[in-house]
Order: sequence, then C-alpha cells, then structure tokens
Amino acid sequence: MEVFMDANDLTVVFTLYPGFTGLDLVGPHEVLVRCGSRCLFAAVSLEPVASERGLRVLPDVTFADCPQADVLFVPGGPGQTPAMNDEALIAFLARQSAAARRTVSVCTGALLLAQAGVLRGRRATTHWLAMRQLGRLGALPTRERVVWDGPVVSGAGVSAGIDLALALVAELRGPETAQRIQLAIEYDPRPPFDAGAPDKAPPAIVEELRQASRFQPQTDL
Amino acid sequence: MEVFMDANDLTVVFTLYPGFTGLDLVGPHEVLVRCGSRCLFAAVSLEPVASERGLRVLPDVTFADCPQADVLFVPGGPGQTPAMNDEALIAFLARQSAAARRTVSVCTGALLLAQAGVLRGRRATTHWLAMRQLGRLGALPTRERVVWDGPVVSGAGVSAGIDLALALVAELRGPETAQRIQLAIEYDPRPPFDAGAPDKAPPAIVEELRQASRFQPQTDL
Repeated sequence: MEVFMDANDLTVVFTLYPGFTGLDLVGPHEVLVRCGSRCLFAAVSLEPVASERGLRVLPDVTFADCPQADVLFVPGGPGQTPAMNDEALIAFLARQSAAARRTVSVCTGALLLAQAGVLRGRRATTHWLAMRQLGRLGALPTRERVVWDGPVVSGAGVSAGIDLALALVAELRGPETAQRIQLAIEYDPRPPFDAGAPDKAPPAIVEELRQASRFQPQTDL
Repeated sequence: MEVFMDANDLTVVFTLYPGFTGLDLVGPHEVLVRCGSRCLFAAVSLEPVASERGLRVLPDVTFADCPQADVLFVPGGPGQTPAMNDEALIAFLARQSAAARRTVSVCTGALLLAQAGVLRGRRATTHWLAMRQLGRLGALPTRERVVWDGPVVSGAGVSAGIDLALALVAELRGPETAQRIQLAIEYDPRPPFDAGAPDKAPPAIVEELRQASRFQPQTDL
C-alpha cells in the first residue's frame, strides 16, 4: 500500500554482512521505507550479500561511499559472530553512529554495536539467547522487546524489528504515520501458538535452543 | 537460531516478480527455511528482482528450470497489477500449483493465483483493500487472517505471512517445530498501536488508504 509521505528527508542505512537474518532486515525495512525516507542497503562492496539462509540481497552503496545516515540500522544473525572481527564493518558502524540521529539494532545486531563501542554503559536488548554476551561487551542488558537509550534503539530477536520500526516511525514522524503503515501492512498479528518467548514456550523447546546456541555458557539467558 | 531439522525433503519455491512486497516474501521465508526445507527463489530470469521499494533479491532458478515445488509461494505487492498480464509468471503458477502439495499466497499474491485459475470457487483471503477484486476473479473472499481451502492457503496483507507460515509448518512438520521456530525468531509480537485492521484503525486513516488504493471502486472492502 502506498503511504502519503513525499518528504524523503531521512536517510536510513541498512547495514549488510554475510549471514544476516533476513527478517531482521526486511521487517524494519518494510516499515521504515514507507515513512518518507531514502533507504539504502550498505555493504563492504556492491556484490550480493547472502543471509544465513540463502536470501541474496544487492547492496546500493559501499561502506566507503555511503552518505551519512540519519538512522543507522544493523540486523543480527549467525554471521554476527565472524562479523565481530570485520574491521571495515565495525569501523563503519562506529563512524556512522557518531553522527546518526538514531542507531538501531535488531537481535544480535546489538553485539555488533557493542563491539563498535556504541553501547558502552547503555541499556540495550538482543535475542534472548545473547543477553549475557551483550553484558560482557559492556552494555546493560535489558529484557524488553524494544529498548531506548539516548540515540540508540535496540530490539529483541528477529521479529521484534517490526515492533521497533513502528515505534521509531511514531517517534520520527508521529503516531498517525505509524498507524497508517501498520494498517497498510495489516500488522494485526495472530500467532498460531504462544511460544514466542522463553517464559512462554514449552521448557523442552527452550532447552533445545539453549543447547544449540552459539553463545556460551549454554545456560545464557 | 539453528533449528534441528536436517531432512530437506520439502522443496519450497518462492515466486519473484518486479514490485513484490519485501515482507510478504521474507516473513514466510524466514519461517519456512527453518523447517528442514530446500527453499528456492524463482523468477523469469536470473537477473535481480526489485521489490516495490528497492529491495533487490537474486533468484536461484528460472521458471523454466525450477523443480516441482512441494510448497509453491507467491507474495503480493503493487507489482501484482502488471503481473496479471505476465504470461510466463501466470503459466508458472498454474503449472506448479497443479502438482504442489500446498499453494500459498500472501496479500495480493492471491489475485495472481486467481488469475492462474487456482482459486476458482475456493475460499481465500488477501489484503483488506483487495477483497472485492478477489471475488471478481472467481474466488470466495473470506475475511480471516489465514484461510485454508484444500491445497490452497492464503494470508491477509503483508505481515499475515508470518502467522500463515507458522501454521503451515505446524501442519507439515508438527506443532513443536512451529513453536521452536516461533521461539527462535522471538515472535511474541507487541505492536505499539492497535491499528492493524480496518475495524481497529482510526477511520480517517482507513479512508485515506482506501482513497489511495489501486483497486476500484475505492469503497472496496
């Protein structure tokens, strides 16, 4: 659905790296691109970037050529672990966030912001399995779906990015614009189960995911 | 999050066409790719396909070379209008759906399935602004978030695809797998507003979207 907002006076930059999680990126993009913003996908080169599961996205701009973001966005995903040592990526996040109006992460994207020094002493959230790791990196882990601290907004795992993006649009453009986008994307969620958080899912399933987590210790929560 | 399912015995084909809506595609992909399936993006050629709003995705396979889908998926988006006359696309949907175990649409993807003859006399849903159009094409429009009729599963607008995909995984792989995926993507939605359906959003916003709809008459609901 078209939304009536022609003033593309906000530049939103979506950071790409190999092994990002598709929905971390596209949920917020679907919302933010409808609020009268110029949205750019940025990566180290213009080669396609593959998600953890085979979604290949073409960047619009390289880190080197990227204009200053008003909103800097970083998704999470299994690729976050190797990306912690990706100097070009981490330097890009540090440099851009220094002048961005809002710096935004979803899921384990928060760990990348922490690595870039953006979360030192700040309240932030991440995927439920990565909360302790976030604390080790100097942030103040906070178990909420969306956490605001100064210019930084962080979301919990994967799908939390949609809720985050609507809240961010409400802040940047007003609640009516956010509601208009919510109606356009018919975001009236009806999950068929109530298993979307570790205190709601069957304990055996929680334990199974914990054992498989890439974050140690496996009791991390 | 990794999910434990190695049996890639299901082939899920995601149909791409210019002007698709990003979240229509990536929400269900994020869920279905975690249930032990081989997921392929198919398009008329291997050139990148741009969403309505600048998300450029690389196809894995052409329509001509695509293996038979167990689950055939088609997203909606503004590109659906010109795609109604795209003979290669419509023939692909008709051919694949004839042997698919499940044929799935999100949002105005249902109109493409209707055009391909897949929805004749079947209950189906679509974006709230396109319900009447769906009826004109021979389906039985049904105002629910996810509608099942025989081998066809249809979802309402955009974000409904996530709910649909979880329900589909529950059917194909059992409820535990669906719950495991729901927890992995932390799908415990908390929209900041309750404006995701036309009977909930402020009437002025409903009217604004109705006036801007590409479907006529503008009172279509």
